[in-house]
Amino acid sequence: MTPHLLSMRDLTADDITQILDTAAGLKDIALRPIKKVPTLRGRTVCNLFYEDSTRTRISFELAEKRLSADVINFSAKGSSVSKGESLKDTALTLQAMGVDAIVIRHSASGAPQQLTRWVDAKVINAGDGWHQHPTQALLDLFTVRERLGRLAGLRVAVVGDIFHSRVARSVVQGFTTMGAEVTLVAPPTLLPPGIERIADGPGLVTTTSDVDAVLPKTDVLYLLRVQRERMATQFFPSSREFARLWGIDRERLDKLPEGALVMHPGPMNRGVEVTADVADAPNAVITEQVTNGIAVRMSCLYLLLGGEDARDADDAATTAAETPPVAAAAGRGAEREGLR
Amino acid sequence: MTPHLLSMRDLTADDITQILDTAAGLKDIALRPIKKVPTLRGRTVCNLFYEDSTRTRISFELAEKRLSADVINFSAKGSSVSKGESLKDTALTLQAMGVDAIVIRHSASGAPQQLTRWVDAKVINAGDGWHQHPTQALLDLFTVRERLGRLAGLRVAVVGDIFHSRVARSVVQGFTTMGAEVTLVAPPTLLPPGIERIADGPGLVTTTSDVDAVLPKTDVLYLLRVQRERMATQFFPSSREFARLWGIDRERLDKLPEGALVMHPGPMNRGVEVTADVADAPNAVITEQVTNGIAVRMSCLYLLLGGEDARDADDAATTAAETPPVAAAAGRGAEREGLR
Amino acid sequence: MTPHLLSMRDLTADDITQILDTAAGLKDIALRPIKKVPTLRGRTVCNLFYEDSTRTRISFELAEKRLSADVINFSAKGSSVSKGESLKDTALTLQAMGVDAIVIRHSASGAPQQLTRWVDAKVINAGDGWHQHPTQALLDLFTVRERLGRLAGLRVAVVGDIFHSRVARSVVQGFTTMGAEVTLVAPPTLLPPGIERIADGPGLVTTTSDVDAVLPKTDVLYLLRVQRERMATQFFPSSREFARLWGIDRERLDKLPEGALVMHPGPMNRGVEVTADVADAPNAVITEQVTNGIAVRMSCLYLLLGGEDARDADDAATTAAETPPVAAAAGRGAEREGLR
Repeated sequence: MTPHLLSMRDLTADDITQILDTAAGLKDIALRPIKKVPTLRGRTVCNLFYEDSTRTRISFELAEKRLSADVINFSAKGSSVSKGESLKDTALTLQAMGVDAIVIRHSASGAPQQLTRWVDAKVINAGDGWHQHPTQALLDLFTVRERLGRLAGLRVAVVGDIFHSRVARSVVQGFTTMGAEVTLVAPPTLLPPGIERIADGPGLVTTTSDVDAVLPKTDVLYLLRVQRERMATQFFPSSREFARLWGIDRERLDKLPEGALVMHPGPMNRGVEVTADVADAPNAVITEQVTNGIAVRMSCLYLLLGGEDARDADDAATTAAETPPVAAAAGRGAEREGLR
Repeated sequence: MTPHLLSMRDLTADDITQILDTAAGLKDIALRPIKKVPTLRGRTVCNLFYEDSTRTRISFELAEKRLSADVINFSAKGSSVSKGESLKDTALTLQAMGVDAIVIRHSASGAPQQLTRWVDAKVINAGDGWHQHPTQALLDLFTVRERLGRLAGLRVAVVGDIFHSRVARSVVQGFTTMGAEVTLVAPPTLLPPGIERIADGPGLVTTTSDVDAVLPKTDVLYLLRVQRERMATQFFPSSREFARLWGIDRERLDKLPEGALVMHPGPMNRGVEVTADVADAPNAVITEQVTNGIAVRMSCLYLLLGGEDARDADDAATTAAETPPVAAAAGRGAEREGLR
Repeated sequence: MTPHLLSMRDLTADDITQILDTAAGLKDIALRPIKKVPTLRGRTVCNLFYEDSTRTRISFELAEKRLSADVINFSAKGSSVSKGESLKDTALTLQAMGVDAIVIRHSASGAPQQLTRWVDAKVINAGDGWHQHPTQALLDLFTVRERLGRLAGLRVAVVGDIFHSRVARSVVQGFTTMGAEVTLVAPPTLLPPGIERIADGPGLVTTTSDVDAVLPKTDVLYLLRVQRERMATQFFPSSREFARLWGIDRERLDKLPEGALVMHPGPMNRGVEVTADVADAPNAVITEQVTNGIAVRMSCLYLLLGGEDARDADDAATTAAETPPVAAAAGRGAEREGLR
């Protein structure tokens, strides 16, 4: 595991497998009457959100609370940021306060990387500019692996505004690292020459604007959120045009092979990139992605904050009755066979 | 007990008695040095507030924390709601995250009911449009029963803008279900024909615009908050006019029988519906209502989230030393004689 | 210890020593793997912030959570305050809810004092108007005592907009109470006749506008934050002018005696009152101030909420394994020799 979680580009296939295996063990916690383990009791995690994202923030907050961490929510609004405080001074303050991990969302690409220069805390990138959103990609990989039993060799189509999407960047890198083939499907204006290098690695990436041709050869159909604020710019067709040419409706859904999955990082624009009936279809795993997000984020926090060490600390602090040890849960994951 | 808490209309007298009895047991927790029981440890409660209401949100949050639940606050501001996410998608997200209970405040009547279609979580209505605010009514009933020893046969006067008030609707239904008689007192413009059907049941409801005639025959004087934003519309007299005709001052207070109670759901407009000296008079139980709100909300969460089952889960998780069992507390309530 | 913590003026040298000694014991908690003691478990602390201050709020919130209190954050935005609710009604509500301590920040000088009239809860002033910010002064005293081993006899220079600064008022009173000498350094427009009476006591306070003359005779250089919104008013030079005449750069830093400290309450305006290289110099203790803020705020909460009583409650509630008793920690501090 890397010292921080900044980009899917930093993770090897072994790293990803370790995160997914650990998440598989931790997922069971959500099924217990008491959905909580004391793994991170007395540790402080700060959710430092310079952009609004209730869904991502709540997912991290639940992951942190289920690990019994103390959670501090810091939103840029109404903070010293509006008094002109720099990211550096905020970082030094959190460092001085002894925060153990920082989950950061920022509009500037690279802000999480910058943060690691100033703090000892573990940094998790919860989305930075157009750059990366690695926990989104990890929860997507988890969901596909759980549903289809493997990642290597799968045919993945990513549809939408790939050019401006941090989710696309992370997802494409994640799938190619695990040995899947990725096809990028988008309007020609959003497929500039070289876009397939988004994978940043030796992955198999091809491009097309013809979604209908791709569907029959797709195991995983990954729909990106249409950013309404980009509509009707030079790059972008109208909402109606987009729906007609690239939106997934029942008719297009039927072109997918039996058992193929439909994914979306949320929140959806029903009627634009996906129709309501497709969003609720049996092979749409959109709510499973949300469920798995908590386990995957617990896994990342657990691994970054010391794994074995954290468990040792727990052993002292916990009565046996209240804590089915997370190590056992994580162990189950680790004992599974790797994917490749 | 109903599966959710959406409306006073759904509750029988037995349901209400069970909630009040359980609250009576739980109220003692606030008197202990450690105001906390582990009943809901490892359960997640989401406070989903689409309208601002700090008082109600804090009351629920304290109730949840005293039951040791993990609390997620979700305010509509700065959330995906502003990105156009529908209530349905928010519901599906919370469902996917394994939230156990949702406390919802929404400007649309019926939103809590809608929510129950999409989630397994228990839903508590914390105020929806002009429709209902059931926990407010329950804490009012609790306060009256504790002070006067009974509810059946009491004469209750509800004064103010009954037509637009969800509090009035819930309070009137609660009192009539428990066998009290209710008189609605309001300007004629706010007493349209049929308003007495607000009780939605076989209750005894009469109407008048003459507050002075009603006071001598009143055991419980329930003042509604004047919504300043409705002032000076066609329905509504001016603030000064309202105070003169329906506001309760010292002189009107003296017309009440000995021992009658003055209630208000807060926040008050001192000088409009109530003068400052009346608000602070010994028979005004306005702060007691606030105190009892926490116990009543603990009771609702406890009963909705499984009562016995929740206790069993605790037994495993808790050392005897730290947990005077909530079951014992609740049991004390249940052993008391019913009211009727 | 006083019943509330409203102003440095209320504290004797013995009170201050007790707070600092207790903080010294509590500071160790931050070094443990589990940074948490159960001292205030089941107690409720409300952070009632009528002005934005993320840094102060987070520092208090961490202090409260490390003492295991239940924390309620109440921000004036989106609250009943905007519906016209008075501070009194908010106070009565919190009182009725059984809140044990209230940390209040308010733009009106004296608001915390007012609050104590209406609640049984312990009140901590987290900054009121131009009046006081006592926990800031206490953490500053703690930092100096820890670094230099004493407070009595030190020469302290406070530089900047003393006239409008609650921090200055509290810091000057704190240092003089502990026997230090204070020199106020500011533009002449900000040094009205009688400003040295800011100390409100028999302290030694002198004034000057010549920062360069003061530096060689300074053990502690305390820089105030320049309030940008006051720039370019009649009182205030421009940002550039201020930096030239009173800002601390490397050249001025070198005029300080060996071992002198540079302090700032944050957030800094790098390039105005202090240059970036000075802020990061070895004798700048600005991040230590932030670190110590948590221990000092834990100490204040611990002492106000009953010390011995709180400990007794813990003994019942805690397993020995998880709680190195705070009493022992606090005891270590108390056994140390006083400073004077």
